[in-house]
Amino acid sequence: MADKIFRVNMTNLTTSVEAVPAAWAGHGGRGLTSTIVAAEVEPTCHPLGSKNKLVIAPGLLSGTMAANSGRLSIGAKSPLTGTIKEANAGGTAAQLLARAGCKALIIEGLPKEDKWYSLALTPEGVTIKEETELVGKGNFTVIETLAKRSDAKLGVLTIGQAGEMRMGSANISIKDPDGGLRSNGRGGLGAVMGSKKIKFITIDPKDGKVAIANPEKFKEANKVFAKALADHPVSQALGQYGTNVLVNIINESGGLPTKNFTSGQFAGHESISGETMHDTIKERGGKVKHNCHAGCVIQCSQVYNDANGKKLTSGFEYESIWAMGADCCVDNLDHIAMADKLMDDIGIDTIETSVAMGVAMEAGVLPFGDGLGVCRILQDEIAKGTGLGRIIGNGAGSVGRAYGITRVPVVKNQAIPAYDPRAIKGIGITYATSTQGADHTMGYTIATNILGVGGKVDPLTKVGQVELSRNLQIATAAIDSTGMCLFIAFAALDNAECLPALIDLINARFDLSLTGDDVVNLGKYILKTERTFNTAAGFTATDDRLPEFFYSEPLPPHNVTFDFTGEEIDTFWDF
Amino acid sequence: MADKIFRVNMTNLTTSVEAVPAAWAGHGGRGLTSTIVAAEVEPTCHPLGSKNKLVIAPGLLSGTMAANSGRLSIGAKSPLTGTIKEANAGGTAAQLLARAGCKALIIEGLPKEDKWYSLALTPEGVTIKEETELVGKGNFTVIETLAKRSDAKLGVLTIGQAGEMRMGSANISIKDPDGGLRSNGRGGLGAVMGSKKIKFITIDPKDGKVAIANPEKFKEANKVFAKALADHPVSQALGQYGTNVLVNIINESGGLPTKNFTSGQFAGHESISGETMHDTIKERGGKVKHNCHAGCVIQCSQVYNDANGKKLTSGFEYESIWAMGADCCVDNLDHIAMADKLMDDIGIDTIETSVAMGVAMEAGVLPFGDGLGVCRILQDEIAKGTGLGRIIGNGAGSVGRAYGITRVPVVKNQAIPAYDPRAIKGIGITYATSTQGADHTMGYTIATNILGVGGKVDPLTKVGQVELSRNLQIATAAIDSTGMCLFIAFAALDNAECLPALIDLINARFDLSLTGDDVVNLGKYILKTERTFNTAAGFTATDDRLPEFFYSEPLPPHNVTFDFTGEEIDTFWDF
Repeated sequence: MADKIFRVNMTNLTTSVEAVPAAWAGHGGRGLTSTIVAAEVEPTCHPLGSKNKLVIAPGLLSGTMAANSGRLSIGAKSPLTGTIKEANAGGTAAQLLARAGCKALIIEGLPKEDKWYSLALTPEGVTIKEETELVGKGNFTVIETLAKRSDAKLGVLTIGQAGEMRMGSANISIKDPDGGLRSNGRGGLGAVMGSKKIKFITIDPKDGKVAIANPEKFKEANKVFAKALADHPVSQALGQYGTNVLVNIINESGGLPTKNFTSGQFAGHESISGETMHDTIKERGGKVKHNCHAGCVIQCSQVYNDANGKKLTSGFEYESIWAMGADCCVDNLDHIAMADKLMDDIGIDTIETSVAMGVAMEAGVLPFGDGLGVCRILQDEIAKGTGLGRIIGNGAGSVGRAYGITRVPVVKNQAIPAYDPRAIKGIGITYATSTQGADHTMGYTIATNILGVGGKVDPLTKVGQVELSRNLQIATAAIDSTGMCLFIAFAALDNAECLPALIDLINARFDLSLTGDDVVNLGKYILKTERTFNTAAGFTATDDRLPEFFYSEPLPPHNVTFDFTGEEIDTFWDF
Repeated sequence: MADKIFRVNMTNLTTSVEAVPAAWAGHGGRGLTSTIVAAEVEPTCHPLGSKNKLVIAPGLLSGTMAANSGRLSIGAKSPLTGTIKEANAGGTAAQLLARAGCKALIIEGLPKEDKWYSLALTPEGVTIKEETELVGKGNFTVIETLAKRSDAKLGVLTIGQAGEMRMGSANISIKDPDGGLRSNGRGGLGAVMGSKKIKFITIDPKDGKVAIANPEKFKEANKVFAKALADHPVSQALGQYGTNVLVNIINESGGLPTKNFTSGQFAGHESISGETMHDTIKERGGKVKHNCHAGCVIQCSQVYNDANGKKLTSGFEYESIWAMGADCCVDNLDHIAMADKLMDDIGIDTIETSVAMGVAMEAGVLPFGDGLGVCRILQDEIAKGTGLGRIIGNGAGSVGRAYGITRVPVVKNQAIPAYDPRAIKGIGITYATSTQGADHTMGYTIATNILGVGGKVDPLTKVGQVELSRNLQIATAAIDSTGMCLFIAFAALDNAECLPALIDLINARFDLSLTGDDVVNLGKYILKTERTFNTAAGFTATDDRLPEFFYSEPLPPHNVTFDFTGEEIDTFWDF
């Protein structure tokens, strides 16, 4: 069965299944969501209004046996940034959508009545139902309740209270293979789903399978590909310590943003490091390795138990731990894990929310280091939608505006993540130029600036950073279209067999003969499509800048500023 | 004594008195504040950071005997809109500054220490003092306390709690001749003063006088000018009913924005009309006429007493009464007056704040019509800086973002005032194209669309509106440079003697020979200077648009939408 476009109109409560337009046929994941948003959404529209559309697309290889291919892209005009937006995450949904023959699910319009709905997607199409029981509930209750309602192993996309309240930090969560959650975290896509009054979406592929044009070639390529992934030393470190292996590494580099970006090193780093986390997990009988989707050979996730050996959280990422930890000066990993679980339940981006907490601490709303205070605000303010909860739930920029704070680490109103751009300059170029606001995953120069993957570019000088960020942003846009986890990039940068194997997988899946150049051109096309949307939405080069304080406040211990001129930054787009 | 530039550096706590650069010599009021901000403020800087400057300038005729010349311009980069900003108001400060020989007061930098300060300006210069007693106090306490501290009739500029908290709606208030207040209301200039930690500024001209080059010619011109003002029927209506004469007129036109801009007529309009207000003032022994500055021949202000005959508020404007009244569906004039007084005391723009309340009512924060609820929020939330208080205190756009509301009447994040642009289309062009966000005073097409002043342009068709708005915006920019109240425009549009007399006044004051063309060219220069600043700050044509709902939601009773294309709006700048 050929893949189809599934379309839902929430204004009329109608659904349809359509053939894939020729122009979209070669796209998947981010390439497809950005192409559709650019084609169908008015760039100047209100992100929470009737003209915005939520586009959900598995990657080109999702639903196949290809290793690490289970990422789901979700796109829209972002209520947080006002730019085009794609966020992707693991979980089971990408694979199940692909098996249901869904190339993309497009949700448009706004309901006329003040009611909540759910969508149920099967290979036959989408059914819209009114939902009452789960309205106002957190994500974990949604997952558990739906598991009781049906025996089938449904894929689930859900929003928590934050999405219902259309908060700018609201994410869309995806059920993982163990009934936990993964999050399409950045840019407030949960608010777009909330504006359309959809509490959750279930996916049941029934007996659907993804067709492989050349199964033998596919199997062969996958063997090479999976081996390249598994062999890379970064993959192995990720499997042992999770992404949180980075706390000590980035602290050592002097680029670990601490106390709302006033220092590059955190005195409490050992207490929250990947090594400490690893030992704690072992002591308490958790799981050091865990996969967010079937077929992952890296397994950077984990299950972190509390002191009583009960599961506290999983998918406990470096960026979340950094944000609640170093940036808010919280050196208690259990408090951070409690906050992480609460944020997952409320359905709110851990980076945006924790950076917002750091700004709130600077504003005097609560003291730096008060991890339990953060948990209280999450439960009593954000989940309940109080005034303070709305301010923090709308992100770091919102807190800065509410309290008149000038040290607000955002680009295009999206919080800057776990790598200070003064001490790791390549990532500053990514933050500034990304089509989607500050986002390390858009062009992860940390690989080359810090980890020595794909060569080495000194993080403290300007030399080579623009080119590095450009090459990585182009490659990332292409990878984000395949359904592959971004962590394949380490192997792709260092192992000459990896990228050709990935291209072979795509060729074998669709009976194509793509080359490396085609992949690069795809990446360039995606970036330019996104950039064109943003320009039409009113963005200019002045938006491709870091906040003022990065240029004027030297960051200890290196005492460096971000010293790129606007003209230097703008050369990023010379391709 | 030649006028000087007074400069205060809050970083070093130093002050200086400087000669006026040649390029600034011909400017006053808005022309001067915008020229200085454009010359000295980096367009992309953070409005609350060290690079923004607060520029305070009397008009070209301020401090003279010219009728209605007591308006004070204050400029900066606006924390509310991100654009260049000028707001002007009456009170005694413009005349006293001019008499002190101050052409402009420029305040730059941010204090290093967490302390509050006051400035005292005399002809000799500015003295900076630490202030503790009045920190945290409302504007009326500041005015009263300063009156006790000094016998001199000092001019006073002050910020309330809103300015101290750097709220986007915070205004700067000016003492009026009776110890009441007038407000430079729009664009959050009080937050800029608050960011510089200046609680108040006193002005003592000692025995300073403004020199008139040709006193006889000046006197003669003033006679003609004052008569033209006094004779115009709109001036007379303003003297009798205040600006609130407009409630019934605009309601009748179907352009009175009601219930957060969902209707153009308010059922309770009679209860809040200028006629009702006039009768109530008479009954309670208030003052129907009152001047906001010495020399005003129109006297549109009034003193509104409570039921016990005690002064409740003054300067009770149509736009404030509309905003709290029709837009929030409050039909009790006493409740509106109580809120007006509270807003004056807290130091917060009545238009921005009341429109924000209307959006908050749509969000369910309080019911429409709850005037006492508004007063409670002002006292218990905004003045105290709670989460909800910060949300509302940062304006209508802030409330919209916090609660995910799409019907948010703002342009460039500044609240749309008292005339619906669907039913009065000329003012929509002004809102869209103004260099300063939505502001009726930037090009008051109501004069010609509704009042039949300066001809008649049908408010319901598109024909002639762009040209009307353009001509008025150019003229207004020039008038705002003279220190004249905008209400001279009615006479200037209808009485052939008025504008030449105004030009004669300027020529006689400075020994010049300006013509009408020079005045038009000054207006054009100001608009283009402001526009250039905004473009460099990142604004594009996409910002010169009204919110989506004005294009899609027909406004009763005429059931009209705002139907200008972007291209049509952009022709505004063809001059």
